[in-house]
Amino acid sequence: MIIERNMERTDLPLVVIPACFPSMVPYLERSLDEIAAKARVRMHTDMTLDLDEILNRLAGADVAMTTGIHFTNDILDRLVPTLRCITFGGTGIANFVDIDHAHDLGLMLCNAVHYGDNAVAEHTIALLFEITHKAGRLDVRTRAEGWPGSDITEIGGLTMGLIGFGGIGHRVAELAHGLGMNLTVWARHPDDETLQQLGARRASSIDDVFATADVVSPHLALNDATRGIITASHLDLLRPGSIFLNTARAELVAPGALEQRLRKGDIFAGLDVFSPEPLPADAPLRDCPNTVLTPHVAWRSGKALAGIVQQNVRSVIAFLDGGSYNVV
Amino acid sequence: MIIERNMERTDLPLVVIPACFPSMVPYLERSLDEIAAKARVRMHTDMTLDLDEILNRLAGADVAMTTGIHFTNDILDRLVPTLRCITFGGTGIANFVDIDHAHDLGLMLCNAVHYGDNAVAEHTIALLFEITHKAGRLDVRTRAEGWPGSDITEIGGLTMGLIGFGGIGHRVAELAHGLGMNLTVWARHPDDETLQQLGARRASSIDDVFATADVVSPHLALNDATRGIITASHLDLLRPGSIFLNTARAELVAPGALEQRLRKGDIFAGLDVFSPEPLPADAPLRDCPNTVLTPHVAWRSGKALAGIVQQNVRSVIAFLDGGSYNVV
Repeated sequence: MIIERNMERTDLPLVVIPACFPSMVPYLERSLDEIAAKARVRMHTDMTLDLDEILNRLAGADVAMTTGIHFTNDILDRLVPTLRCITFGGTGIANFVDIDHAHDLGLMLCNAVHYGDNAVAEHTIALLFEITHKAGRLDVRTRAEGWPGSDITEIGGLTMGLIGFGGIGHRVAELAHGLGMNLTVWARHPDDETLQQLGARRASSIDDVFATADVVSPHLALNDATRGIITASHLDLLRPGSIFLNTARAELVAPGALEQRLRKGDIFAGLDVFSPEPLPADAPLRDCPNTVLTPHVAWRSGKALAGIVQQNVRSVIAFLDGGSYNVV
Repeated sequence: MIIERNMERTDLPLVVIPACFPSMVPYLERSLDEIAAKARVRMHTDMTLDLDEILNRLAGADVAMTTGIHFTNDILDRLVPTLRCITFGGTGIANFVDIDHAHDLGLMLCNAVHYGDNAVAEHTIALLFEITHKAGRLDVRTRAEGWPGSDITEIGGLTMGLIGFGGIGHRVAELAHGLGMNLTVWARHPDDETLQQLGARRASSIDDVFATADVVSPHLALNDATRGIITASHLDLLRPGSIFLNTARAELVAPGALEQRLRKGDIFAGLDVFSPEPLPADAPLRDCPNTVLTPHVAWRSGKALAGIVQQNVRSVIAFLDGGSYNVV
């Protein structure tokens, strides 16, 4: 479906939403009036990743509001000069656009931040509960097998080791603390006062976290300094029975290192992120034991979707007013 | 396997463990030396529910240490007078023995208490996470379907409504508070100071809880006053999207009432307890939509199992010394 506002007002700039995640549609639809006060708006309510189709839909657009669309440099070249601003429904946009090239073309790039801190932190804990209490997989087994026996593991009293202490890492620390876990935190710029309030120990190194925690979870942005920051040597420090969680980015871990460590069969992993995504049918991770795999859904709560749209709309309004908001 | 200690010392009383849950074996085995300081001990390490076999195994026993064994009055009659004390690896033992009849026979009955408060409280939260974040079922779908799309629901900001505020209810309140949930609590004898510390609202009635909470979870012991205390009318008060959890006892809910409410399709349920157990293959609950079912595992953590054994052993030692501990 295509929803349009003000299309007769050719004096106004054109804002196009070329494709939508289904669950984002209601939030975007509710925001159209606000944008229509300053622009023509065209919203395509279906999702497509077909780049020719996306090019067609963005023809003549001044602003593109996008989520999940990967822009090649060739496409950017073809959209400029009419296109002047792109909003992205996410924080880490380097996977979706060549930021330097876009800036060279004079494009304003806007992202959304912190909208999903609590959602992602909760999903990190959800993965931990599924590894220790197995509620979802026991549900499936109870339906298939009748009445399967199973033991659970209490998480209270375990030590959560966090690598990174930004918005999400901090929220994971609060939730883990609330569940009676001990905390060990490594961060480049730790907030000692907050660590103290949570009774958290400041780790001296990433090695320290891996060697002492029962559960290790990285919460770092992906960039040149963090790509592959978790190595096979770190993973080798995990003691039998330890749990590795990842709701941040798969590329924080050196390629193949996690699969290799998991194959020993003595640790557990709860993963929401993979490289590449979607996770291929023949990905070695699918055959590793003791894993819980979810398809990059940690951020996809109603609250987070509403937050993304609210921030992206604010960026569009700011751009149309000659200002800026959430510019990358 | 049969493990024996002191069997030549026929001057000492005989303590028999007639059957074991597999996961309890290591904890019981470690406790044998302590008992053997005061008694002959025979431990059967396999599990059986065959009553003739259990009768054979308990022949001549002064003390029976049991978990999961249902004693009929006929069996009690046949075990008395040599049998003088039974320990149960659980709290609510009325389902396993006719307490009045046992007392008439002069038997001392001992249970274990609070060993599983944190484990059961955690599992309550685990069921809540599985309903809202679906990690376990998404894992199964990711393996079967490749890369399923799914939204999640944040639990932070939702209201947890608790019915009962004993050891488990209190711990659920603490965990929910730590996860950023609001609390509404109904209890016969609420601890106002504790409620205040958790920022909990004291509900005026069970109706009040069902009408105002997003998540409702009963934590009451099962007895004549609480059997069927949750009625169809209560469940009708749940708003669409609400979640009903039960890790206490299925019999707290009026027979059939939950199935009837679930069939409307607009609420969710996370259940670890059923009536009867094991849940029959043709139980109507299995066909109700929006449910997560786990096979009464909430209490089965290593910590809880160790706690049960520790308390049961303390009861046995106390009995052998002419005293009493955890006597029902």
